[in-house]
This record gives sequence, C-alpha cells and structure tokens, in this order.
Amino acid sequence: MSVDADRGRLVVAGDDRPGIVAAVSTFLFERGANIIHSDQHSTDLYDGEFFLRVEFELPGLAFQAADLERGFAPIAGRYGMDWRIVKAARRKRLAIFVSREDHCLLELLWQRRSGDLQADIALVLGNHESLATTVAPWNVPFHYIPVGPAAASKAAAERRQLELIEGAADVIVLARYMQILSPAFVDRWQNRIINIHHSFLPAFAGAGPYGQAYGRGVKLIGATAHYVTSELDAGPIIEQDVHRVDHRDTVDDLRRIGRQTERAVLARAVAWHVEDRILVHGNKTIVFS
Amino acid sequence: MSVDADRGRLVVAGDDRPGIVAAVSTFLFERGANIIHSDQHSTDLYDGEFFLRVEFELPGLAFQAADLERGFAPIAGRYGMDWRIVKAARRKRLAIFVSREDHCLLELLWQRRSGDLQADIALVLGNHESLATTVAPWNVPFHYIPVGPAAASKAAAERRQLELIEGAADVIVLARYMQILSPAFVDRWQNRIINIHHSFLPAFAGAGPYGQAYGRGVKLIGATAHYVTSELDAGPIIEQDVHRVDHRDTVDDLRRIGRQTERAVLARAVAWHVEDRILVHGNKTIVFS
Amino acid sequence: MSVDADRGRLVVAGDDRPGIVAAVSTFLFERGANIIHSDQHSTDLYDGEFFLRVEFELPGLAFQAADLERGFAPIAGRYGMDWRIVKAARRKRLAIFVSREDHCLLELLWQRRSGDLQADIALVLGNHESLATTVAPWNVPFHYIPVGPAAASKAAAERRQLELIEGAADVIVLARYMQILSPAFVDRWQNRIINIHHSFLPAFAGAGPYGQAYGRGVKLIGATAHYVTSELDAGPIIEQDVHRVDHRDTVDDLRRIGRQTERAVLARAVAWHVEDRILVHGNKTIVFS
Amino acid sequence: MSVDADRGRLVVAGDDRPGIVAAVSTFLFERGANIIHSDQHSTDLYDGEFFLRVEFELPGLAFQAADLERGFAPIAGRYGMDWRIVKAARRKRLAIFVSREDHCLLELLWQRRSGDLQADIALVLGNHESLATTVAPWNVPFHYIPVGPAAASKAAAERRQLELIEGAADVIVLARYMQILSPAFVDRWQNRIINIHHSFLPAFAGAGPYGQAYGRGVKLIGATAHYVTSELDAGPIIEQDVHRVDHRDTVDDLRRIGRQTERAVLARAVAWHVEDRILVHGNKTIVFS
Repeated sequence: MSVDADRGRLVVAGDDRPGIVAAVSTFLFERGANIIHSDQHSTDLYDGEFFLRVEFELPGLAFQAADLERGFAPIAGRYGMDWRIVKAARRKRLAIFVSREDHCLLELLWQRRSGDLQADIALVLGNHESLATTVAPWNVPFHYIPVGPAAASKAAAERRQLELIEGAADVIVLARYMQILSPAFVDRWQNRIINIHHSFLPAFAGAGPYGQAYGRGVKLIGATAHYVTSELDAGPIIEQDVHRVDHRDTVDDLRRIGRQTERAVLARAVAWHVEDRILVHGNKTIVFS
Repeated sequence: MSVDADRGRLVVAGDDRPGIVAAVSTFLFERGANIIHSDQHSTDLYDGEFFLRVEFELPGLAFQAADLERGFAPIAGRYGMDWRIVKAARRKRLAIFVSREDHCLLELLWQRRSGDLQADIALVLGNHESLATTVAPWNVPFHYIPVGPAAASKAAAERRQLELIEGAADVIVLARYMQILSPAFVDRWQNRIINIHHSFLPAFAGAGPYGQAYGRGVKLIGATAHYVTSELDAGPIIEQDVHRVDHRDTVDDLRRIGRQTERAVLARAVAWHVEDRILVHGNKTIVFS
Repeated sequence: MSVDADRGRLVVAGDDRPGIVAAVSTFLFERGANIIHSDQHSTDLYDGEFFLRVEFELPGLAFQAADLERGFAPIAGRYGMDWRIVKAARRKRLAIFVSREDHCLLELLWQRRSGDLQADIALVLGNHESLATTVAPWNVPFHYIPVGPAAASKAAAERRQLELIEGAADVIVLARYMQILSPAFVDRWQNRIINIHHSFLPAFAGAGPYGQAYGRGVKLIGATAHYVTSELDAGPIIEQDVHRVDHRDTVDDLRRIGRQTERAVLARAVAWHVEDRILVHGNKTIVFS
Repeated sequence: MSVDADRGRLVVAGDDRPGIVAAVSTFLFERGANIIHSDQHSTDLYDGEFFLRVEFELPGLAFQAADLERGFAPIAGRYGMDWRIVKAARRKRLAIFVSREDHCLLELLWQRRSGDLQADIALVLGNHESLATTVAPWNVPFHYIPVGPAAASKAAAERRQLELIEGAADVIVLARYMQILSPAFVDRWQNRIINIHHSFLPAFAGAGPYGQAYGRGVKLIGATAHYVTSELDAGPIIEQDVHRVDHRDTVDDLRRIGRQTERAVLARAVAWHVEDRILVHGNKTIVFS
C-alpha cells in the first residue's frame, strides 16, 4: 500500500508532566494537522515517564517538516521531551543479516513485495554464501562476508558490515544470523538491531533452543523478537508467540513448527519498528500496535 | 482492587473535526486533571466519526463532577459531541438473567468477589428456580420469574423484570438466559443488554449452536458476546473467542469445552462495559481495551 | 526430510466390528512390519463406523507392497473395509490452481523446498498470467489457462486443465483460485480438491468474505481449508484458524492479516492430505494429525 | 456425565517390541472387549520405549476385572510391560492443597459439580484457614493444617497431611499451595502430585513469577501444570498455556490475567490424570489427550 505524503508521526518520551497532551495536540491543531491515531502510555500515576505516538495528516508535510520541527522544539524543550517527527512516506531501509536458514529472510522479502511491510530492503549480508541464490530473483544486493572463529576475522567482518550499512540502512534485522555481534557494534546501532531468537525468552537463551525445549518436555514452543544488547538474548523484548507441540514431536518437528512462529514474530516486530510504534523504556518496550 | 475516588472517565463520540483532541485535553489540563490513558479512534481520514475515551485523575473529583460537567458542556456543544463524564468509583450494577446453566453466572459472581470485575451484582433473575441455591451463598438476591409460552405470560414476566431492575441496575447480562426479550424491552435498555451466544457469530445463530457446529464439522468452536437488539443474535459484537475441537468430540464435548470460552468471553465483555470501554457505532463496537 | 523407503501407511474405513484392530495388527506383525503410529476412531460405541491409520516400517516395503496388498485383501474382505496401503516414499503430486494472489502458492513452494511439505509440485495453472514470473525461478511448469465468463469458455478451460493434470497430479490445491469448478470436474476429483476459503466457514461463504466480516464487525477473522464439493464452500472442513482484529482494522487490514492465516491453514491441510492423515466421513473429516 | 460401568482402560509402558499391539488387541478381542480409542507412542523407530492406552467396552467389566488382569499378566510378562487395567467408573479421589488463593480450588469444585471433571474431591487441606468458608457450601471436608517456618512444624504438618490422605485420596493437587513439600513426601506420592506454577516453565521458576515476568518485559504470560519432584518446579510438564499482555499491564494485571490461565491449565492436567491419559517417561509426559 502506498503511503500518503501528508502522513506524519510525532513520537515523544519523557517525564510525565501535566499538560503534555494538551500542549502537543494544540500545537498540531494550530499547524493544521489532523490527528488520525494517538496512543499514550504513562508508567506511573504520578512522577512516571510519558510516552506518546501521534499519527497525523498535514497537507504539504513533505515541504514543511523542517518548519514543523522548528515549531515543536520549544514545546519539547519546555517539557524536557525526547522526540522526533517522522514522514511516513520516508521508508526505513533494512539491512538483513543471514546465515543458512531462509525462512525469516523470505518472509521479509515477500512482505516487502506484497506491501505488507512498509520498508525497503537495502541489502542482505550473509556469513555463508548459500542464500545468495535465494536472494538473486528479488533484486536485492547480497554480500557474502565470511566470519571465522578468530577475533581478527570477526573484527574484519564487522568493519566490512559497517562499511556497507552505514548510511545505507536504518535498521539491522538478524534473520537467524548465527553470529554474535561485538558490544562495540551493538552500541553503535543501539535499539536498531532486531534479532529473532527461536525460544520463548527468557527460557532457553543461548544455543540450541529447540534441543533445550525438547529436553525439558515443554508443551508450547516459542519465538522472541528483541532488540540486541551486549548481553546475549537479554535485550528488550518486542514480540513473542508460541505454538503447541506434543510428545510425538521430535527436535526436527520443533524446528519445522518453530519456523512458522519465528518468521511471523520477526515480521511483526520489524513492521512495528519501521512504523515507529516501538519505544524502549529501560529493558522493556512499549508497543503501540 | 479498590478504585480511586479521584479517577474519572470522559467518553466522547461525534463527527470528527479538527481540534477536538486539543480542546478536550486543554480543558482537562486547565481543570487540573492528569490524563492517565487516552484512546481515540476516527472511522475515516476525513469526514468520519470520532470516538475518544480519556481516563484521568482529578483530586476531589467526587465533589466537583457536576461542576466539571457544567464546564465541559459548552465545548461539547461547539463540536456537537455525545459525551459523558463518569466517576470510576461509582460502580455499575448488574442484573444477571439466567435459566439453568450456571457457568457464566458463577464466573461473574467469582470475578466480582475477587475484585477482577469492577461492578456490583444487584440481583439475579431466573426463569427457572434451579439456580436459587447456587446464588444463595453469595448474598445476592435471586428472583424466580417463570416465563410461559403464551404471549401474556411473557409480557407479565417482562413487566415484573422491569419493576425489579429499573433504578436498581445499570446493565443487564444475559448469562445463558434462554428466553427472547421483546423489542419493547430491548429498546428500553438499548446498548445496555449484553448476551453471550454460544457460537462464533454470525455462524450458528439461533437455537442449538453446538449441535449445528457438530453437524457442520467445524474445527474450532466459539462464543460471542454482543449487545442485544431486536434482531436475534445480530446486535453489535463486543468480543469473540474460539477453542479447538476435533473429530473425537461429541456434541456434549463441544458443550463442555464451549462453557470455558463462553464464560471468559462474557466476563471480558461485561468488564469492558462497566469500565466504559465500549462505544457503539452503528452495528459495530469500538472497544478501547 | 527424506522419507524412509521402508515406511508404509495402512488406511482403513468401514463398519466398526469387534476384532478389527486385532486382525490388522496381527497381519502387520506376521508380515514383519513394526507399527510406528496407530490412530483409530469409531463414530459410535456400537454400530458406528471405524477409521484406522497405521504407520509402519517394513524392511523391503518398496519391493513387496503388491504382495502385502494381496495378503491384506482377504482380511479387508472379511470385515468389509475400504482400505489402501501407501508407500510413504511415493510422494504425492500437487496441481496448484491460482489466480492473482501469490501468498498461498509461495507458501507451498517454500514448504516444498524446505522439506516441510512431503509432496512434489507438478504444475501450476493460472487463469491469469500474472503469477508466471513468480513461479519461474522454481522450476515448476506454469500454464496460463484463461477462463472467460461464457459457459463455453469455462468448459474449454476445464478440458484443458484436466488434460494437463490427469495422470500428472494426485491432488488439486485451489490456492486462492477465484473460479468455480463445474460439478462434473469436482465429481471426477472427489475428495482430492482442497480449497482455502478466506473466512471462518460457515460464516461468510461466497464472495468477498473480508468485506462481509468487516461489515458484521467480527472480532476474529478466519480461514478454512476444505474439500471441494459441488455446493459452494460447503464441503468437508479439514482445518480452520482465526486471528484477532479490532475496530481500527480496515478491510485492507483484514486482507493483510488474513493472508497469514490462509496460507498457514492451507499448508497444514495439504500436508495432512499428502501424508494420508485425512479420512472423509459424510460431510466431515477425521484428521489423524 | 455418568460413566459406563463397562468402560475400561488398559495402560501399558515398556520396551518397544514387535507384536505388542497385536498381542494386546488380540487379547482384548478374545475377551469380548470392544476397543473405543487406542493411542500409541513409540519413542524411537527401533529400540525405543512403547506407550499404549486403550479404552474399551467390556460387558460385565465390573465383575470380571480381576479375571481380566489374571489373563493379561502372562502377556505383560512376555513383553516385560508395566501395565494397569482401570475401571473408568472407579473415580479417582482428589486431595486438594490450598493456601489463600481460591481460583484453582473453585475451578475444580465447579468442574466436579458440572460433571466436567470425572473425579471426586475427597478433602481440601489448607495451610491457612481463609478458604474454609469457600469450601463450606460444597460438602467437602476442609482441614486447616498450619505450617510454620521451623523444620519441626513442617514435618508435623506433613505427618498430619499424610494421615488424612493415605487411603483417602489417589492424587494430590497443589492448587496454588505455597509451601514446598519435603523430598520424602514427594517420593511417597511420586507422579501423583500435580502442581500449578504461575509461569511458562522453565522461565520464572521459584518465587514471584509474575513479578519476574513483569521485570523481564515478556509479551505473553503463562502457567504450567507439572508433576512434583524433589527439584523445585522441575518435574515433568503436563500442560502449559499462555495469555497475551502488554506494556499497560501492571504486576497486578498479570496476576489477574494469569488466574484464568492457571485454573484452565490445572483443570486440564487434573482431568487427564484422572482419565489415565498421562504416562511419565523420564522427565517428560506423554499425554494421550
């Protein structure tokens, strides 16, 4: 679906203070913007933090966004807000990191083409070459960047990855990418790296979650999309879902069933991110879905 | 959970016009109210209808609600809004209509006691006597009002029901009540009668939905809570849910499995109603859950 | 996953009579087969119908299946059974019928390649040309067979379709194929045509189910996979699922959300069919999932 | 629903050997039993373990169960099976252990009365007195057995509990019982103590799972029914389910939402246990649901 050039989003976070909603909505009204959706969350009744996402229509937004920002800055300053104004028509660009598994990658490619995912896929980076042929028919650049076990190889790979994505992508999606990124890399792209972990976190963090789940005999298996932090599988959770399994299912069955959950959960998380629906609060997310 | 005496809700519906959010939020700010949650929905980008529910804290609300209403009336007039201001501490009173099945009734009685349902149960009316003993330990009045097949008997029963509930209840809950209310009765309590139908409407409206579902061989059975209108099982849907069944399940199994879905769906619908989360728009509901 | 050449399935239906399980299991034991899974269903305690699916390992099955069938025939005759013995390694061949929507088709192509779907895709038939490019990279023949509104055009198209699939395919999958097949065609492929309908049947049969669902204001939208009969959208249901929607969702949103449910439901139904897990009983299915 | 006196169950576990199904089904056939349902599971293709549950009708079962057992013993011996024959009409007796929370207890009491739970509730033991009034109208004995922090108090309480339940109950249900039973107690009732833990295990084992879940920011909360072993919250999982939550939900909301999941999961687990549907295999369960 094509996005209206007049559609904008105002996203705000800060200390909760009386009058914020009135100040923001009055500003938008006076500028001629029509509020389409407005979502708000306060973490506490008093002295909490305040989160707001407003979606609005403003005729001519494309040509006056900078002016709008200048107008809003003093209001934001008065209330001490973190904020941004986003043109919905300015699609975010994804850099998708993959290894050998294709299901999450294919889901994003397909949702992009069908218009369900309002983003562009700028490039795909693989530490294996095997998905190059999968990507080929989609007219998306694929770069093969092998990552060896040595620290030097990892560092070189990250340098190459950063060269390719800096300025070319807005968000990194780890679509079953089986390498751990360095803390320095993660810090640089804070709250802009989305990973899919194939378990219902915090259960079964780390390697081989389906094997762990099988060993424990759980009756549901899950998948978790989260922002990556320097602590493995411990970043802010964006979305989770589960699927029922039973005693007949082998580890291979869990993998097969889990693939459906993984790709659905990851695709929802990416969609929410590129639509500016996710605000990070400490180690949690607020999702205005 | 006890409800704060300072907690209020402002619910608004009307034509969508620029500046409504600004006008409402500025009014609340100037009156010293702190907005806790705010939910808004517009049915169309332009020229649609506008629905708003604001939950706020206003110190001393108990003593100044009338004053607040007087203050808001001119704003509402300017924008042509339907509106109400509600004190959250003023719990709504339920009149629960039952026949022989107890599961929906028990769920409401239990959720009331546990504090999960923020309402009072004013009275229970049964067209059979059998649930009198079920109600007895809960300190809620039970009235047995038999309904015969003749029109005169039905009319007499409705007169007696209305005598008991007018002024004593705010909402009627048909908790598996197996009689059809007259159009005159329904009109009098428009959008204030909640029924639970034991199917996924619009499939299997009317009598014997589990038998119908069994006959059709569906793989999921459902339940639907809706406001009652004069057309049977066709009123605005509030909530629905389903549960998986398979070829081994008999009609009795469907009834047993369905009971869990029915009581959960009805309890959610009643909770949303008494918390003023439901707005009716034509034959649909907007639920700010 | 590659299928063991020794793996077989025995599927039985008939009047329930004492001793059937003993007769079948003794036969398999005496032939040297090891029972891996066994599922059984009787429709009534007495005088019902009996359904059985046994999955077994028999060393050398590939070379003695005919002999096994000859041995089983007298037992089947004694109990009046319908039955078949199937080599699991003999993959069923799908003919996929499509129109313009790609999501169900792609799901089957992906699941085929990943090995999740144990079938071959023999050919794709489209009444529009648009999906030819989608199919091209998959090394699967695509045939464009336009279907005009006139009866003669429909009949000619069906003749051409039958020419292509007879002997080349074992099952037809209508993957959002927007044409109605003639009763003669349907009879010829009885219980071997699987359709995905984009609603929770029996609600919203016929055209435009998402529009119908939107108009009714349902809170869940569904999809239904069923065998095609000559009565539109009324054949035996194989699988159904639903997804939650709310008042914010437009008809386009329902279509987008529904696509996920449609492809998942269809893929499960096709997988169960090709693994001989579905038995049809009147207008219902028994699914040994 | 009343259970037929002729209905029996044969439950078998042991090493998988060729011919077991034939031997068991031939035995039942020769004894005049009609197989209603039969579920089988083998853990591996070769050299695995074998689990079987057969539900059958045998006219006069009530009077010949002992004879049937004598007849089956040599077959069981030949194959080295663990086994039992159960009369379905012989309802299992529950001892329900509670603390202060009533929802799981009430669910079992309701399901018992409605006939959904095919068991008797022999007695309720509380380490607090507060649920005595809840139990009073149900004609079920309530025993108040306080448990102090000292080891001697715990030991005395367990002695008293054992005195009350030995011979009087077949299975112990910990319905939000907030005390830890000693290893000696647990061993004595191995695979006959069902606990409900208010998290999706193995996540959030131990105390305060809703607080832990809130702190981690999960998007689904769960409940887990499992057999109790001497390792806390680590026994074989019987059933799990989850419910969606979001950033608006406080810890109290998680508790409220979770209550629905807890009682449903526990009730399913208890129903499966009393219907002999659960077989324990190492630290996992096979559930023939």
